Amino acid sequence: MGNCCEHFRNFFCGNKNTNVRVSLPAVCFVWQIAMIVLFGVFIRYDEESDSHWSEVKKHHNISSDIENDFYYRYPSFQDVHVMIFVGFGFLMTFLKRYSFGGVGFNFLIASFGLQWALLMQGWFHTLDHSTGKIYIGVESLINADFCCAGCLIAYGALLGKVSPVQLMVVTLFGITLFAVEEFIILSLLHCRDAGGSMVIHAFGGYYGLAISWVLYRPNLHQSRRLNGSVYHSDVFAMIGTLFLWMFWPSFNSAITDHGDGQHRAAINTYLALASSVLTTVAISSMSQKKGKLDMVHIQNATLAGGVAMGTAAEFMITPYGSLIVGFCCGIISTFGYLFVSPFLEKYLKLQDTCGIHNLHAMPGMLGGFIGAIVAASATEEVYSKEGLISTFDFEGKFENRTVGTQGGYQAAGTCVSIAFGLVGGAIVGLILRLPLWGGPADDNCFYEEVYWEVPEEEESIPPILEYNNHMIHKHPDISESNFSVDQN
Amino acid sequence: MGNCCEHFRNFFCGNKNTNVRVSLPAVCFVWQIAMIVLFGVFIRYDEESDSHWSEVKKHHNISSDIENDFYYRYPSFQDVHVMIFVGFGFLMTFLKRYSFGGVGFNFLIASFGLQWALLMQGWFHTLDHSTGKIYIGVESLINADFCCAGCLIAYGALLGKVSPVQLMVVTLFGITLFAVEEFIILSLLHCRDAGGSMVIHAFGGYYGLAISWVLYRPNLHQSRRLNGSVYHSDVFAMIGTLFLWMFWPSFNSAITDHGDGQHRAAINTYLALASSVLTTVAISSMSQKKGKLDMVHIQNATLAGGVAMGTAAEFMITPYGSLIVGFCCGIISTFGYLFVSPFLEKYLKLQDTCGIHNLHAMPGMLGGFIGAIVAASATEEVYSKEGLISTFDFEGKFENRTVGTQGGYQAAGTCVSIAFGLVGGAIVGLILRLPLWGGPADDNCFYEEVYWEVPEEEESIPPILEYNNHMIHKHPDISESNFSVDQN
Amino acid sequence: MGNCCEHFRNFFCGNKNTNVRVSLPAVCFVWQIAMIVLFGVFIRYDEESDSHWSEVKKHHNISSDIENDFYYRYPSFQDVHVMIFVGFGFLMTFLKRYSFGGVGFNFLIASFGLQWALLMQGWFHTLDHSTGKIYIGVESLINADFCCAGCLIAYGALLGKVSPVQLMVVTLFGITLFAVEEFIILSLLHCRDAGGSMVIHAFGGYYGLAISWVLYRPNLHQSRRLNGSVYHSDVFAMIGTLFLWMFWPSFNSAITDHGDGQHRAAINTYLALASSVLTTVAISSMSQKKGKLDMVHIQNATLAGGVAMGTAAEFMITPYGSLIVGFCCGIISTFGYLFVSPFLEKYLKLQDTCGIHNLHAMPGMLGGFIGAIVAASATEEVYSKEGLISTFDFEGKFENRTVGTQGGYQAAGTCVSIAFGLVGGAIVGLILRLPLWGGPADDNCFYEEVYWEVPEEEESIPPILEYNNHMIHKHPDISESNFSVDQN
Repeated sequence: MGNCCEHFRNFFCGNKNTNVRVSLPAVCFVWQIAMIVLFGVFIRYDEESDSHWSEVKKHHNISSDIENDFYYRYPSFQDVHVMIFVGFGFLMTFLKRYSFGGVGFNFLIASFGLQWALLMQGWFHTLDHSTGKIYIGVESLINADFCCAGCLIAYGALLGKVSPVQLMVVTLFGITLFAVEEFIILSLLHCRDAGGSMVIHAFGGYYGLAISWVLYRPNLHQSRRLNGSVYHSDVFAMIGTLFLWMFWPSFNSAITDHGDGQHRAAINTYLALASSVLTTVAISSMSQKKGKLDMVHIQNATLAGGVAMGTAAEFMITPYGSLIVGFCCGIISTFGYLFVSPFLEKYLKLQDTCGIHNLHAMPGMLGGFIGAIVAASATEEVYSKEGLISTFDFEGKFENRTVGTQGGYQAAGTCVSIAFGLVGGAIVGLILRLPLWGGPADDNCFYEEVYWEVPEEEESIPPILEYNNHMIHKHPDISESNFSVDQN
Repeated sequence: MGNCCEHFRNFFCGNKNTNVRVSLPAVCFVWQIAMIVLFGVFIRYDEESDSHWSEVKKHHNISSDIENDFYYRYPSFQDVHVMIFVGFGFLMTFLKRYSFGGVGFNFLIASFGLQWALLMQGWFHTLDHSTGKIYIGVESLINADFCCAGCLIAYGALLGKVSPVQLMVVTLFGITLFAVEEFIILSLLHCRDAGGSMVIHAFGGYYGLAISWVLYRPNLHQSRRLNGSVYHSDVFAMIGTLFLWMFWPSFNSAITDHGDGQHRAAINTYLALASSVLTTVAISSMSQKKGKLDMVHIQNATLAGGVAMGTAAEFMITPYGSLIVGFCCGIISTFGYLFVSPFLEKYLKLQDTCGIHNLHAMPGMLGGFIGAIVAASATEEVYSKEGLISTFDFEGKFENRTVGTQGGYQAAGTCVSIAFGLVGGAIVGLILRLPLWGGPADDNCFYEEVYWEVPEEEESIPPILEYNNHMIHKHPDISESNFSVDQN
Repeated sequence: MGNCCEHFRNFFCGNKNTNVRVSLPAVCFVWQIAMIVLFGVFIRYDEESDSHWSEVKKHHNISSDIENDFYYRYPSFQDVHVMIFVGFGFLMTFLKRYSFGGVGFNFLIASFGLQWALLMQGWFHTLDHSTGKIYIGVESLINADFCCAGCLIAYGALLGKVSPVQLMVVTLFGITLFAVEEFIILSLLHCRDAGGSMVIHAFGGYYGLAISWVLYRPNLHQSRRLNGSVYHSDVFAMIGTLFLWMFWPSFNSAITDHGDGQHRAAINTYLALASSVLTTVAISSMSQKKGKLDMVHIQNATLAGGVAMGTAAEFMITPYGSLIVGFCCGIISTFGYLFVSPFLEKYLKLQDTCGIHNLHAMPGMLGGFIGAIVAASATEEVYSKEGLISTFDFEGKFENRTVGTQGGYQAAGTCVSIAFGLVGGAIVGLILRLPLWGGPADDNCFYEEVYWEVPEEEESIPPILEYNNHMIHKHPDISESNFSVDQN
């Protein structure tokens, strides 16, 4: 069976040509032009961002501009935006020679992804069938950023092993799959998943893992000297970690109900994250002979509490419940980095550069089931009658759903997201094996000179303590010859 | 003619003395004390930040504290603040040996500039003639930060080639000119320019370019080994790029109308920026033999969409219109880095360290004209009657202005800003040529040891893998002698 | 006397064993489990974050969700959160070989501290005696973050000289002492201290200094080659500085009164900080032979204005008053780095790694007295009758307090905070001298390989310009042997 897979994998594997001078511009131009055309046909401002707003205010008897959804959600939107571009981007700068690729390709695919997400999510969720238009506002922007997060998580598993063109393909299909599974989970199954444990993390995680499994490189060890960090690249990665960690309460509360919904989601996430840090440190220290901490754990497993609270954050999980979730997920995620990732690589042939299995896939799945349990155990006493209805949106055709049923559907939603991730990822992985996309050779992985102009080494900087005008004037040949590589 | 300019330039050029021990403290103290005196005479809290607010609330029948402008604008203000200090500051850390100067001098001149801007903008825009006082609130702080942005853009052209004292002079005159041109454009011509394509970017860009042209250094090639980046300095610069990129929607929406105005400006800017990223990547990749990306383009040209939306963001430019603007500006700006900057340097003797011509001057000018076109094509149908009046502020003596006339004035405003930048910059450039300011010699440009205490080289850190207590104890002389440079 | 202290210090000093493999996990697990249990017993959502909110709204006749305190305070909370984790964390990355420790241990102790702070501050301030529960909302989260700030300041004095276990002890006692002194100052003495000049900065500063004094290491010079920065670590530290500087207006306004209180506190802090930057630059430049700037001053003393405005920011100190405060504190703090710190180290045996005496202790104390003076000189004319009452909270049993009395109590509060810091710190210092905690040896201070797995040196990266597939294939032995240290 393993042999069969091996053959199957090799079938598509041609000679490596990493020149993307035609394919990358072509993909960018064609897709961006397509976006413009589709936006022209479909996308319009919603009533809160259209200049007819003053009429809407009168019509709906809204007393003040502060009631515009912008003021409820814009601060959270900006926090989420920082998480997507700086958080995910810098978290992936930890490799010694792939920092440009980590932060730069993250920038590229998120910028494409958010446009495509506005369209896909619009078609599935907010298309006005009478006019055939999609009306967007600040909540749409948040959802588009969320949608990108799924693809960026998948990028974490592929980091250093794929070309930018492949990443654009991953994003195109990832956003499409995301919108479909989100529609099934949120609309058909009527699950609640404000922070996206299921629809973002479980889906994105398994999507990336499935792609990575199909793209298995048996000779990746040829690049293993580059698959690691240096001192300052680890500090850069901490920028990503901290911005993710700090703004996760905004992530989980960005699109929850106005008022107590946003308030409670922020508190719960804040507590779960704090708890994760302590257990991550504990396990990391225990795992080393001398009790030393490992930066990989601190950079990643500390975030697991936020992932796992994605579904339950808006529920009445209680403050100590949040701490318990964070406590467990910090442990599980750190164990994942210590034992599960090496196991997966060795026995399942799964190469997961950033360990997204430990940070997103597993905690996301757990978060989905935690959400199911918390939903199933909700009572009118704890939530109040009105609170129960608004928290779980038991309105319209879901008016008579019980919390027990809701819990069941939440669990089902988790399974749907995983299934979409695995099947979708396997298919996308096969597409990526076509020898069209300019992926790097096995001995050039994690090495960004393949796709980036990289400046000369630090060693060629003139030593500061010795260098002065004098020396230059005495030895013009040195100053001219040694330092003649002009980068700008 | 060129020869004549040459002579003129050399006239002022004496021997280089970079000691600023007297001039820098003198400028800082005198100007800061002047600020204190002028603030004492002129600046007071406005009615929303004064403790008489509770009386004002009663008087104006305001029902809630949330109606205080603080809650409408403070989150955007903080985003703008981050752009000014971290965004512009870190964008200028890309040089291998000028990171302290990039972020540190940016910090200095913005901190001075915002105080002077509160005064200058206050005198021109919000001076209460009955009391002779300027009343400040959160919107004043945003405007002061905006005003600094103009000078920081100019700094981009001068980076590495001027002393901190010269930068303070650039800022003093820059803020002054800014306030005057802003008064002409916004008050006299009654243009709309919420995100400042004209008043900030076109003005700041041409102001910096004119200064740089006057300060042309024919022997700058002597420093060319330092006019480039190293690996980690490029990653630092990405911090600047990303914070500018992410918060640009806040920049363009910070002072637009409450409600739909802020909401729409944020959406439009978000879309234009996303579109810029894709076309920047496409052109950057096409320009290299092997399709490799250039960090200079990714760091800068991706932002061009935000610059160009500065005027039109609050208009009903439509979502696909925003994408088109971003699409074009990403291309134009990247072409600028590839072809225009080398051309300007070679034929116009214009040395533009950060390429502000491509990122600010040209897209800013374009943004002004885009704003003019969008304004001229506004209709009551699209905006609604009330929306048209509030968007273009057709009130008071401008009640009867048509959108066509408005478009004409917008275009005129763009020309005014460019003229102010060029003429003002040329004059300030001449002032900077006086041999008083401690500018660096041609072979010491882009080299910050001239103005900063710089720590010893990384090479002198004890190698981690070999170093241990043992070795130290065996060779106490090594540990004492080699590492004796104490920095703290 | 000095000799006596010396003996006392040495009494506790055993052989150094830096293995924390048992103690660190034990402390993390035990304390985190204790938090969960105590949260289970005591902590509940407050009425604005509980799902009964819709009933509360009806009951109190609140018209809109936007009146939920979340919308008043959440943006400021996130800014404060960034200050605590990125601001303080990155400010402490300046050491050449302690960046992981700076940002990582900061992360650990703040994550523990905020949980313990929610409990301690809850017991003292918001415990509902009828139910025996503490009800938390967004304001509680801000206060918990504030509480951590006190301990992080103390960490600044200890940076590089203590083990993570010792830091956990410092935090446990620090939070406890903080809650007690805060209760005395804010509740018993009824002082106003929104930004915490007294309760946070003066307390935290003297607490850290007292600990450091007790932990004096006579042979610290053995590590002095590591007690300094390298080029890029100074740039990392500027990230911390700038995020602290930019968000300080949010810090000082986060828990002031809704409306004009928050608005005015933000403006005052913004101005004081700007003024600090100019005088810091001036003094720093004057202090060097050639007028060069010192990064240590720019990184720290520029923030002194924000510290000193912690108490007075919400008062009517006037804009020029704020500038004066910043002006003086920039000077005092820079002088502190130049003269006071070396003096303290030489004559008082006080080793203060980050110079918190100059940035927190001294400006915090000054801020307390400035607050006292401004309070004492308040008049009904300036504040309005209602404004005076709301600003100083002259209600209930403090209804008849005069501003003069208030000024006296403010001054007394400052003294209380200093006393708590000094006495508490001395006691905690003694506890830390027990040979249980795994502190580093004198020749291993400021060196993080003691507590962290550190990646190999940058030197072992393959040189980019020479490295290519060719070379690898020709010399497989090189690629395999030299680069065989795999870090991930």
